[in-house]
Amino acid sequence: MRTTSDVFHLAIPVHDLDEAQHFYVTLLGCKLARRYPDRITLDFFGDQLVCHLTEGQPPEPESLYPRHFGVTFRHAEDFEALHQCAVLRKIPFFSDVSSRFKGLVEEHRTFVLADPSGNLLEFKHYRDPRMMY
Amino acid sequence: MRTTSDVFHLAIPVHDLDEAQHFYVTLLGCKLARRYPDRITLDFFGDQLVCHLTEGQPPEPESLYPRHFGVTFRHAEDFEALHQCAVLRKIPFFSDVSSRFKGLVEEHRTFVLADPSGNLLEFKHYRDPRMMY
Amino acid sequence: MRTTSDVFHLAIPVHDLDEAQHFYVTLLGCKLARRYPDRITLDFFGDQLVCHLTEGQPPEPESLYPRHFGVTFRHAEDFEALHQCAVLRKIPFFSDVSSRFKGLVEEHRTFVLADPSGNLLEFKHYRDPRMMY
Amino acid sequence: MRTTSDVFHLAIPVHDLDEAQHFYVTLLGCKLARRYPDRITLDFFGDQLVCHLTEGQPPEPESLYPRHFGVTFRHAEDFEALHQCAVLRKIPFFSDVSSRFKGLVEEHRTFVLADPSGNLLEFKHYRDPRMMY
Amino acid sequence: MRTTSDVFHLAIPVHDLDEAQHFYVTLLGCKLARRYPDRITLDFFGDQLVCHLTEGQPPEPESLYPRHFGVTFRHAEDFEALHQCAVLRKIPFFSDVSSRFKGLVEEHRTFVLADPSGNLLEFKHYRDPRMMY
Amino acid sequence: MRTTSDVFHLAIPVHDLDEAQHFYVTLLGCKLARRYPDRITLDFFGDQLVCHLTEGQPPEPESLYPRHFGVTFRHAEDFEALHQCAVLRKIPFFSDVSSRFKGLVEEHRTFVLADPSGNLLEFKHYRDPRMMY
Amino acid sequence: MRTTSDVFHLAIPVHDLDEAQHFYVTLLGCKLARRYPDRITLDFFGDQLVCHLTEGQPPEPESLYPRHFGVTFRHAEDFEALHQCAVLRKIPFFSDVSSRFKGLVEEHRTFVLADPSGNLLEFKHYRDPRMMY
Amino acid sequence: MRTTSDVFHLAIPVHDLDEAQHFYVTLLGCKLARRYPDRITLDFFGDQLVCHLTEGQPPEPESLYPRHFGVTFRHAEDFEALHQCAVLRKIPFFSDVSSRFKGLVEEHRTFVLADPSGNLLEFKHYRDPRMMY
Repeated sequence: MRTTSDVFHLAIPVHDLDEAQHFYVTLLGCKLARRYPDRITLDFFGDQLVCHLTEGQPPEPESLYPRHFGVTFRHAEDFEALHQCAVLRKIPFFSDVSSRFKGLVEEHRTFVLADPSGNLLEFKHYRDPRMMY
Repeated sequence: MRTTSDVFHLAIPVHDLDEAQHFYVTLLGCKLARRYPDRITLDFFGDQLVCHLTEGQPPEPESLYPRHFGVTFRHAEDFEALHQCAVLRKIPFFSDVSSRFKGLVEEHRTFVLADPSGNLLEFKHYRDPRMMY
Repeated sequence: MRTTSDVFHLAIPVHDLDEAQHFYVTLLGCKLARRYPDRITLDFFGDQLVCHLTEGQPPEPESLYPRHFGVTFRHAEDFEALHQCAVLRKIPFFSDVSSRFKGLVEEHRTFVLADPSGNLLEFKHYRDPRMMY
Repeated sequence: MRTTSDVFHLAIPVHDLDEAQHFYVTLLGCKLARRYPDRITLDFFGDQLVCHLTEGQPPEPESLYPRHFGVTFRHAEDFEALHQCAVLRKIPFFSDVSSRFKGLVEEHRTFVLADPSGNLLEFKHYRDPRMMY
Repeated sequence: MRTTSDVFHLAIPVHDLDEAQHFYVTLLGCKLARRYPDRITLDFFGDQLVCHLTEGQPPEPESLYPRHFGVTFRHAEDFEALHQCAVLRKIPFFSDVSSRFKGLVEEHRTFVLADPSGNLLEFKHYRDPRMMY
Repeated sequence: MRTTSDVFHLAIPVHDLDEAQHFYVTLLGCKLARRYPDRITLDFFGDQLVCHLTEGQPPEPESLYPRHFGVTFRHAEDFEALHQCAVLRKIPFFSDVSSRFKGLVEEHRTFVLADPSGNLLEFKHYRDPRMMY
Repeated sequence: MRTTSDVFHLAIPVHDLDEAQHFYVTLLGCKLARRYPDRITLDFFGDQLVCHLTEGQPPEPESLYPRHFGVTFRHAEDFEALHQCAVLRKIPFFSDVSSRFKGLVEEHRTFVLADPSGNLLEFKHYRDPRMMY
Repeated sequence: MRTTSDVFHLAIPVHDLDEAQHFYVTLLGCKLARRYPDRITLDFFGDQLVCHLTEGQPPEPESLYPRHFGVTFRHAEDFEALHQCAVLRKIPFFSDVSSRFKGLVEEHRTFVLADPSGNLLEFKHYRDPRMMY
């Protein structure tokens, strides 16, 4: 059962905390909750995203599968506002808006962003909200 | 802003859809939303988890960092009920309940489960709910 | 996704509208929404129950399976208040409170009432609310 | 009083669990909560539907009365999205969309589906939401 | 602070319980909660209305002031749906829809019904919802 | 269906606006929304109470029936806090706390206050919240 | 995390309680919660504003920065309704509606009112609601 | 009417943005929404606080009146958790917890913090939640 009191949390690797904070807070408009020497924690659309500082070079993102994360918006205007935010602030797209599963119940629009450490973020909007799961 | 209408979604690799469904639905008590030849989608505590079928052998999980996911419960009894579920249904623990950051505002209890593909799931409860982010 | 704006509705046979209204409104404390010559509609714990007048004699209820309906309460005190209501108003029990699946995650308390047309109503409370589905 | 924490539950007979799961999960888009040898439990539009395996042949559904169940949607677009889902996935209609009680306050649109065991599901949308009960 | 858990209650005199039930339940679409020899209790748009049986003849309603009650709807369509209900079911108007305080912030539409005991019910919709108080 | 967006409103006679404002705002802790030469409007526990200035002398309140109004609290502590407010601020009781319908499902505690114009206000708390209607 | 149960409170200086009450209650439509000899407390759009009586002359407001307060509305119609209220009731504007940060994600409309003690109130509406913080 | 979608906003002067961010984010646990050269914007307990960079030296805070801001918590445990946060993280108190208005309906506990620019923050918990306004 979906609640407003519990919080999903996701931990991901990043290779530079300043770059990560710039991407998630300054560009994407998430909120910085806490900053430690080895990680930052973010209020990411109401859930928690933790960026752990990781050694080495960030990988080049190759495929959306099997690993990515993001938000499925209930209302089209929220999907479009975030897309507009990405355009206005020149966040690089891994893939711009397209429609998937046209003509099926699962039809939805989607776009994908890449953070500076190669993590892929997918944002979606379904025509039929029951398909959000 | 946390809403009840948007849904966080996370895509992870799994190496056997039947095993994944057994772990997430039969053991962990999540709900199966859809099953396709190459993936299953789950209602995971109200958010969406997508398990993509991936070739190869599942890796042995080594460290909780930098990559894991889970739920931070607002109420201690929900944290404890899930832990009890894991015990009663003999879900293998990657690490059983312990307390972190004792004496700090960030103090919380946590336990970690591993799914059959080596994905690590962390469940937490903070003494001070403002630290959930 | 559970909402407060949509309403589940269930239509069942009854053999006497006055008896049905007495049972559901006067004894069980549901609210009468509408009365027509051939049916009554009820606000049954927030959902809609429609009792259709049906010819013939009401059957003797024999088994809870496969057909019954009711409410699973989230909070134990609501379960207990309804049980107390049944006791104080002398609603006949098909089976009084018992526990099922003891020691399993699915453990719950349950009692069953029978309406004058032999429809069985089961009310439940689960120790772990995630098992309500 | 309608709540978001309590759950209506309905138990119905089915004659084949795989067929039932295919109908309710794969076609209708409900979520599978639990599967046992003798039943499946479903998150049916936020309430609980339990399909109990029953011996014998499924009856041919003859009449919507006195026994059926379903959802009355508060918003027309949810009614229409489910109807579209039934069309796209070729779920057989017991009766397609029609309007009842035209010119009365009780006016509503309705369509009826039949599951493989002959259980009838009615979905409705009222012009005046106060008539949902 | 407006809550969904507390209930406003109002007790009014009526001179015939059957007439009162007919007016409030059958015509106005409220729900009958309980019936006693000397009163009926109603779920009146989510609050409680108690009609106490009173001796004597019902007075002829003369003026809306100082005593009347009703609902101020937040959304115009709910105001209009109730008005349509009154028209379709031929509930007698004490005064049909009119606008008051035109050109002021307090501008609102209003209509007034009279129950069989001469109690006056006013329903309103304000252009600026902050004026509902 | 109880909502948080619609507002119940009740208009009552008072014989002195200053006295009424003193009673409802300063003593009872309601909020003054608007004051006009001939009436004051109040946020009365989240609903709207309008006190219309009326000529003549206030009547002596004689009986709680058939006319009074008030709030039924869902939670006992809110009932008790308001009673404590009446005691601390020396609001005169028409009748102090007592229990009605002991041993019945309808059992509740109640106390009654009188405003300076003889309007009676009843506040209640039911053991079984389903009896609030 | 934004809640409906906690209340923001702000205390500001005013130089005349009657003037302050006139401005905030009669003109701006806030609700008077309590009045003491040295302050009034207000329900200001759901939060608490306390006006403390302060000696001396009210300063002439010069700049919106660094000190002002107000409400950012989620919905444009609420922003526009309040603006209309200010126009109809002839509340003096410190600055009328204008747009800021055009072409940026932070774009919003804003207008500023001044209370009789020179406190500045800014009301805003953002095109992208995520920029409300 | 208190909503979850509108946001109160308050702009205050600060004399050093790094110090302000340290105080509000790192110590007090608020979330950083945006940082500009001349201000930071914060998610302050769900409302918006904007700290504008101001020239000169921060004043020494002298009195809680007439100007301060903060949160009134509905639940005592949230009040106590924030107090514990201030103790554990050694945030300097302007005044530690005390009770005001003992024996009155307005009785509440309060403590006051000072930010590095001399702005005073008061946090409160009332025994009777109706006194929060």
